[in-house]
Amino acid sequence: MKLIECVPNFSEGRRPEIVQEIAGAVTAVPGIKMLDQSSDASHNRSVITFVGAPAAVKKAAFSATQKAAELIDMESHRGEHPRIGAADVIPLIPVSGVSMEDCVVLARELGQEIGEKLGIPVYLYEEAALTAERKNLAAVRRGEYEKLKEAIGQPGRHPDFGPLRLHPTAGATAVGARPPLIAYNINLDSSDVQIARKIARSIRGSSGGYPSIKALGVLIEETGTAQVTINVCNYRLVSLARVFETVKSEAARYGVGIKSSEIVGLLPMEALLDSAAFYLRLQGFHSGQVLEKRLTEN
Amino acid sequence: MKLIECVPNFSEGRRPEIVQEIAGAVTAVPGIKMLDQSSDASHNRSVITFVGAPAAVKKAAFSATQKAAELIDMESHRGEHPRIGAADVIPLIPVSGVSMEDCVVLARELGQEIGEKLGIPVYLYEEAALTAERKNLAAVRRGEYEKLKEAIGQPGRHPDFGPLRLHPTAGATAVGARPPLIAYNINLDSSDVQIARKIARSIRGSSGGYPSIKALGVLIEETGTAQVTINVCNYRLVSLARVFETVKSEAARYGVGIKSSEIVGLLPMEALLDSAAFYLRLQGFHSGQVLEKRLTEN
Repeated sequence: MKLIECVPNFSEGRRPEIVQEIAGAVTAVPGIKMLDQSSDASHNRSVITFVGAPAAVKKAAFSATQKAAELIDMESHRGEHPRIGAADVIPLIPVSGVSMEDCVVLARELGQEIGEKLGIPVYLYEEAALTAERKNLAAVRRGEYEKLKEAIGQPGRHPDFGPLRLHPTAGATAVGARPPLIAYNINLDSSDVQIARKIARSIRGSSGGYPSIKALGVLIEETGTAQVTINVCNYRLVSLARVFETVKSEAARYGVGIKSSEIVGLLPMEALLDSAAFYLRLQGFHSGQVLEKRLTEN
Repeated sequence: MKLIECVPNFSEGRRPEIVQEIAGAVTAVPGIKMLDQSSDASHNRSVITFVGAPAAVKKAAFSATQKAAELIDMESHRGEHPRIGAADVIPLIPVSGVSMEDCVVLARELGQEIGEKLGIPVYLYEEAALTAERKNLAAVRRGEYEKLKEAIGQPGRHPDFGPLRLHPTAGATAVGARPPLIAYNINLDSSDVQIARKIARSIRGSSGGYPSIKALGVLIEETGTAQVTINVCNYRLVSLARVFETVKSEAARYGVGIKSSEIVGLLPMEALLDSAAFYLRLQGFHSGQVLEKRLTEN
């Protein structure tokens, strides 16, 4: 069963009726399964999560982008989160039976279609990027919608598809392919947020740790717990087990233990199977031995 | 998605054409997915593993029992494994969306149908048993086919369904419901089989360990590895992680480490998720957070 997950972000998080219309464009496509919808008013942004076969996902993402272009006017959009357009960012994520390369190909097809049929400039990012710089979404969104109006004319900021100017209401869209991101929190047996911050610095790529890890130290007020809040951006490179063990070892250096950990939202089965295999020292194990996985195969 | 796994054992392991006909009766039922087939010549016995929705599984198990009754003559059957009939034992195992109680109900319906329509006496066992004694399959099969011919007339050996005499060619059938069984081996960093045997004794129910665990100590000749070979009969009672940690702790008492472990065949996803959750100290985790699991739900 070929399945791709798509997690588009739209620049509307305050008017539920608009978000519902966009979500409706997604679910109208046969074979699409809606997994989640969430809106954030202060970011004025919504995230829709859905899965399906590659062709259906492409169709649904295109249709939602078209609907967002009709309903969202970037000229009047305000919000805290960086953004360049109505359908701001569209990542494609391999779930089963498809490779990252398949997602890259699909992202480029989708980008071309959005650019040509909707007249919205498209930037390819992460695994789908055509240049090293655009692998980084932050570089693509630099200056955001307001500054990109001018910047799009500069050679280094030319879009990969579509016109050389922003769409009058929908702005621009970033389309990419990436591995699944796992939101993972580790709670320390301490209320000292400084320790959580030091541990976060030791594991995250931006301060010399694992390049695929993002992390912050925070205090969970209601329980008085210092927490390392983590994005595991490529669990195949750095697994949950390795993150957990590294945090445990760093915490021990401050005489602090691990109270618990939490997975926020969804994660691929393989990420947990890998952790079980790590601790149980499983040899020769493959996910086809998992009954539920076997049932979806042929 | 309601799914039950069925793993019937048939008293034929030497004539592949007979086994194929029985398997064909299973796959002829729409909605059934064949997962595995294996035959053992010395046991003269075959195991077929399939899954499907409850009604389809009942139909397929009935149809395979009927076919086995046509093709297998217990009067001429010889083999090392204990058996009472052509379709010797039919366990039903909850996989997803069904409870053990659902499997018990289905096992009793299936048993009644086999007894009444095929004239084969049926004994309910394990979770489906009507008496404490018959929970134990060994008690149901005591004396095997040959001695059961007489014993079936004794009050304590009366079948739960069907006639008070063995079927002339098909004998009797045991129908039950049970949790999934996981075949799990732990390899010691030692070639001393005596240590593996001592560890096996310390964990298995029959010598005072965990009631849901069966275990033996063996020597894997080709690698010179002492191995604890284990049946985890109810991973919800005693998890893979607890078995691993108990074996590790017992091995340490002899100054021996764990080299690796292996899962033989299939296992439910939950058994590995539980292990990951144990080691990662996950709180508030539920299997609906697993993308693949979520995709099969509604």
